[in-house]
Formats: sequence, C-alpha cells, structure tokens
Amino acid sequence: MFEFKIVKESENSPARTATFTTEHGTINTPVFMPVGTKGSVKTMKPEDLKEIGSQIILANTYHLYLRPGHEVVKQLGGLHKFMNWDRPILTDSGGFQVFSLGADFNQRKHVPNDKPKMKNLVKIREDGVEFKSIIDGSTHFFSPKSVMEIEHALGADIIMAFDECAPFGCSKDYARAAMERTHRWAKECVAEHNRLNATASYQRALFPIIQGGMFTDLRIESAKFMAELDTPGIAIGGLAVGEPRELTWEIVDTIIPYLPKNKPRYVMGIGTPEDITEAIKRGIDMFDCVLPTRLGRHGSAFTKDGQIHIKNEENKLSLEPLDPDCQCYTCKNYTRGYLRHLVMENELLGLHLLSYHNIAYLTQLVEKLKKEL
Amino acid sequence: MFEFKIVKESENSPARTATFTTEHGTINTPVFMPVGTKGSVKTMKPEDLKEIGSQIILANTYHLYLRPGHEVVKQLGGLHKFMNWDRPILTDSGGFQVFSLGADFNQRKHVPNDKPKMKNLVKIREDGVEFKSIIDGSTHFFSPKSVMEIEHALGADIIMAFDECAPFGCSKDYARAAMERTHRWAKECVAEHNRLNATASYQRALFPIIQGGMFTDLRIESAKFMAELDTPGIAIGGLAVGEPRELTWEIVDTIIPYLPKNKPRYVMGIGTPEDITEAIKRGIDMFDCVLPTRLGRHGSAFTKDGQIHIKNEENKLSLEPLDPDCQCYTCKNYTRGYLRHLVMENELLGLHLLSYHNIAYLTQLVEKLKKEL
Repeated sequence: MFEFKIVKESENSPARTATFTTEHGTINTPVFMPVGTKGSVKTMKPEDLKEIGSQIILANTYHLYLRPGHEVVKQLGGLHKFMNWDRPILTDSGGFQVFSLGADFNQRKHVPNDKPKMKNLVKIREDGVEFKSIIDGSTHFFSPKSVMEIEHALGADIIMAFDECAPFGCSKDYARAAMERTHRWAKECVAEHNRLNATASYQRALFPIIQGGMFTDLRIESAKFMAELDTPGIAIGGLAVGEPRELTWEIVDTIIPYLPKNKPRYVMGIGTPEDITEAIKRGIDMFDCVLPTRLGRHGSAFTKDGQIHIKNEENKLSLEPLDPDCQCYTCKNYTRGYLRHLVMENELLGLHLLSYHNIAYLTQLVEKLKKEL
Repeated sequence: MFEFKIVKESENSPARTATFTTEHGTINTPVFMPVGTKGSVKTMKPEDLKEIGSQIILANTYHLYLRPGHEVVKQLGGLHKFMNWDRPILTDSGGFQVFSLGADFNQRKHVPNDKPKMKNLVKIREDGVEFKSIIDGSTHFFSPKSVMEIEHALGADIIMAFDECAPFGCSKDYARAAMERTHRWAKECVAEHNRLNATASYQRALFPIIQGGMFTDLRIESAKFMAELDTPGIAIGGLAVGEPRELTWEIVDTIIPYLPKNKPRYVMGIGTPEDITEAIKRGIDMFDCVLPTRLGRHGSAFTKDGQIHIKNEENKLSLEPLDPDCQCYTCKNYTRGYLRHLVMENELLGLHLLSYHNIAYLTQLVEKLKKEL
C-alpha cells in the first residue's frame, strides 16, 4: 500500500511525474485536487469530476466535524459512500480552519506580535487547541489524538497531521513555538494513527505538515524533522496565507532539497494556473484549492488570456466558448452569451458550468505540463 | 410535420397513448414537460434530463423576452442551441405571466369584481396588453402579432397563442370578455404564425388556449371555438390558478367531449403526482409544472408516501434513498442522510439532486400510468 513510484524526472528541474497508490486507486501525479469542503465539491457531481479526470478530492475535517459530525459520516458509511466517490479522498486536519476561522485573521496578518489577538475564540495549549464553533459558538477541543480519531472516522485515504498554522506577519519566536508544537503534535499523530490503522478495514496514509512561517531556517528545520518521520508523504503548510508569491516560492525552493525524493510532496492551498505551473516546476506532486469552484460561483472563469468575468457586456452576444482551446463539457456545449445570461439570472446551472470549466481548466493544465516534462 | 398518432386507447376511460412529431423529434404522450423558465430547467443539465427521459421542455416567453431578449436568443442560435437542448421545446405565450406577475394577484383571487385592481401595472386593450416589467418597471406591449414574432424568434417547436388568463374569482361578465378577447387574439395569432411559418427554416406548431374561467358554459364555448381553428394541438389554460381541485377536474371533464380526438391536449401548469394521474385518466396528453424543481430547491421530494422534507431530523442517519422504488440517479447513489446534510448546508448539489429526483419521479409515474392503460 501507499507505493510511490517515480515515472519520469525532468532533466532541467526537480519536476517529476509519479504514481501514488492507495486502497481506493492509484493517483498519477502531479495532481490538482478539487476541494469538497463540506463533503461536496460545490455544484459538482462525482460523475462530473470523473469526466474531467479528477483523481482525488479533498474534504475538510473542521467543517464535517461540526456538521454533520464525523460520527454521522461514519454511520452513513464513511466519506466514500457518503459522497458517492469511490476514488481517493484526502482530509485536512482542521488545523488551518481552527486558526483562520477562529481568529481575527486580519489582525493576525497585519500586526506582528507574539500573542495574536484571537477574539478569545481560540486557546492554544500544549496538548491541543480549544476553539469556538463558527456555527453556534459552542466550545470544542482538537488534539493530535482527537483529530486522528475524527479523520479515521471520516475515512479518507490520505489524512493530514494536526498542525498549528502560524499567521503571516508573526514574530520568529511565535513561528518557532508554533512549529515546535506542530512537531510534537506530528509525533503524537503518527502514534495514534498507527494504532488506529492497525485495526482499520483499510489503511490510511498520514502526511505531516511542514511549518515554520516565513523563516527559511525554521522551514529547513521543520522539513528535516518531518522527513525523518515514517510517513508515506509530506505536506508543506502555512503558505499562500497572505505573503507575496515570490516569498512562497523562495520558501518552497529552500525546503525541496530536504525532502525525500521517494515520497509525494503536497503544497496545501495552491491553485491558480500560475501557482500550479510554478509548483510542478519545483517537483511538487499534489496541490489543492477552492479557487476554481469559488470563482465559478462568482461568475469568473480561467482562460488562456487570464481570468474573465462572464457578466461583462462584451459576452452578451458572444458565440464563443469560455476558452477556445478547452476540451471541457462547458466549452464544447455552451456559448459565453448563454453562460452570461445564466449567471446574470442567478441560474444555478451557470455556477455549475463555470465551476466545471475551472476545475477542468486546471486539470488540463496539469496534464499539459506533465507532457512537457 | 406535427403528425399526431394515437397508439392505444383505454377501454375504461378517455385515456390514450400517442405520438406527436415535431422537427426536433417525436414525443411519446402522455408526457410531463419540465419547465426551464429562463432557458434552464433549474439546476439541470440537458444530459440529466435526457438520462431521466424528458422528451420536451418548456421555456417562458415573458422572462426570455425581458432578459436576455428574444433577439439575443435568436442571435445566439435560437433556444435549442442557446440551451444545448436538441429535443423539442415549447414556449408559453407570456400571457399568464403578464397577468399574474403584473397584477395584485391576491386581490384578484379573493375579491371578485369586474375590474381587478392591477397596481396599474397592466392595461388590457383590445389589441393587446401594456405591462410594466417586473425587473425595472419599463413599459412593454404584447399583442397577438408581437408575441408570435417573439416566439418565432425564440424558436421553440410548439408555441402558444397569446391569451388572457382571467383571475380566479372574477365575475362571469369579466370571464366572458377575457375569453372573447382570447378568441379574437387566437385568430390573429394563427394568421401571423402562418405568415412566419411560411418562410421559417423549420415549422413551429401553434396551440391555442381554451379560457372561460370557472364557468362551464363559457368553457364549452371556448373549447368549440378553439377546436375549429386549424392548429395541430389545443391547450387548456386558466386552471390551477387557486380553485379547488375538484373544480379543476370538473372543468376538464366538461371540456374533453368537445376536443378533437386527433389533436394533442395540453393542460397548462399541472404537475403534482395526483394531478398527473387525474389528467392522464381524462385523456390529457401533455402537462407541465415548475413544482419538481421548485420543491427540490426548497428541500422537498416526492415519494410514494407523499412529499417529504429532507431537513427533518429523522433523515439525519438514514441510509435509505428518497424513494425505495425510484430508479433515478439520486435514489441509486445517495442516502437521505447525505441529502439532508447537503440541504442543511445549502450545498447546491443537494438542490440539484432533489430536483433531479422530483423530475424523474414524475417521469417514471407517467411511464407507469402509460403501461397500465
């Protein structure tokens, strides 16, 4: 299980293609993973995603834990049956949401200090994090152990270790403390995960998450630490949280040499066409982002000439598809004029057709970049 | 073109099965027609409707005339290309919407009088109706001739004559005046329609609409009048506008003997499982309703035990499909528990899956009733 096989390596860059095998199927990497936050990739049926060629999708532990609850998902057959998706699934750890949804994120971003003000919604302790639900204000506690239990109950193929995502703009001392907690938590996650896997009906793969804020020495320290854990893959977290993109890639470039070649590398939260191109060049194997569906629901579409907004008057009488080179269902069957009409009228079909195109656009981009390796 | 062939007649009732041929395909009747008000059957892709077995869909002249405009639809290739639907399409005449959306309908329903108060939004003249747009209050004028031009521009296979739908509760004098206007308008529609058909790239079928309010003698008079027009089909309008259902069927029963057997009969706005069952028994061949998609978007589903609301707590842990006998995509793949979760979370996929089931439920019901004839 969880065999990672490199298929091809670029001669000019760390880029590579590979396969990663899980119990619900083999993933050909690099791979873009659409996000199904609450157990649904917004507006998309599983068949739509398969038609596009999506190989693995994400679901969010934080949201599903709060509603309908991981025990409910488990009783309804686990995520695969719940969502009617028989291919691989990845769940995040809820760490990012606990901090980003629980805290006054603007303040965290712009006012560097050691104790970011968090509206009293989040209390970080050495053994975990107490937080208040964004839904009803009720108090909850996530620990490495409880998150492993939740993720195992949800039943994804790849599960993420519980981490603390330090806010962009925090001091180095704060970033170090958060990183060290993340390291201790990662070890606890590995232990609990192995215990649960031992009796599981199918094996889950645990990926720990490299942290260290925007400090390259911390990032290297974190990369070395995570690389030594016995896990089938490694993720890089705490990026795309507000920093300029040059810094994002500087940090990735710093980390890459410390990552084992024989494990898949996942940069969390990356998903513009530009980001995907940069990530693949650097030998990143997996990435996810809510952007394609979020943009779709707001009437925007990726095209080879950049993002367009379908409501623009110029699309009113356009018989053109969203993108002339795109092979997706939306582009093969619908004019910009019709799509504009649907979005102007708030027809849900319009939001679906744009979301469909955006996911297909990124998926086709990854395939194109793979061929060019 | 527009051949109507009776396939089978019931020995116990006026019920029958038949085929009706249009340029975009042959319709097997009786048939339930899903409604795509603004050029989209809400949340549904054409492929979904084909998978369900929908043979013909509706679009609304009033809405498409206001936005994006019939000329825009025409420039975008006409309704079939616009919507990506290559099977037959029917457009209504806009008459019902002009009156129901333009008037203070509650007052019209409950205070019988000869001059229903219409918020000054609608002015009925002998040559047509002046009305104000529900979108921006701008003034528009529909006449039999202009409606034929609009419907021909939209390009449906079956188009409806412009009629005045008298409000439920109006006096007999009012109902008679509205009916007589509808008769004069129907003749004008036939003339203009024939003129446009003569040079059209494909033939449209015009159906006139029987009116006469809740008065059986007026209804008989209107049925006789419309039956004598040289049209390939006939519709019954002005029903399901607030009257008790016994009265609806009493009026249909009164009309049926006056309708030619060799033309399809369409009762407008009918679409509960009970209504469909009653309509088919009476030899009605076509019916449409927004109910399945509207209910779906509100979290309700048809089942053999009646309508259910998916948000009910009892569905939380249910591994059952919406209806155990239903063969639709939703019922084959999703539990009530998952559907409840989606609708609770306002996930658009939930609204789609329920709409899908509701249309499929009615379509399967029609097939079942056809087999039992």
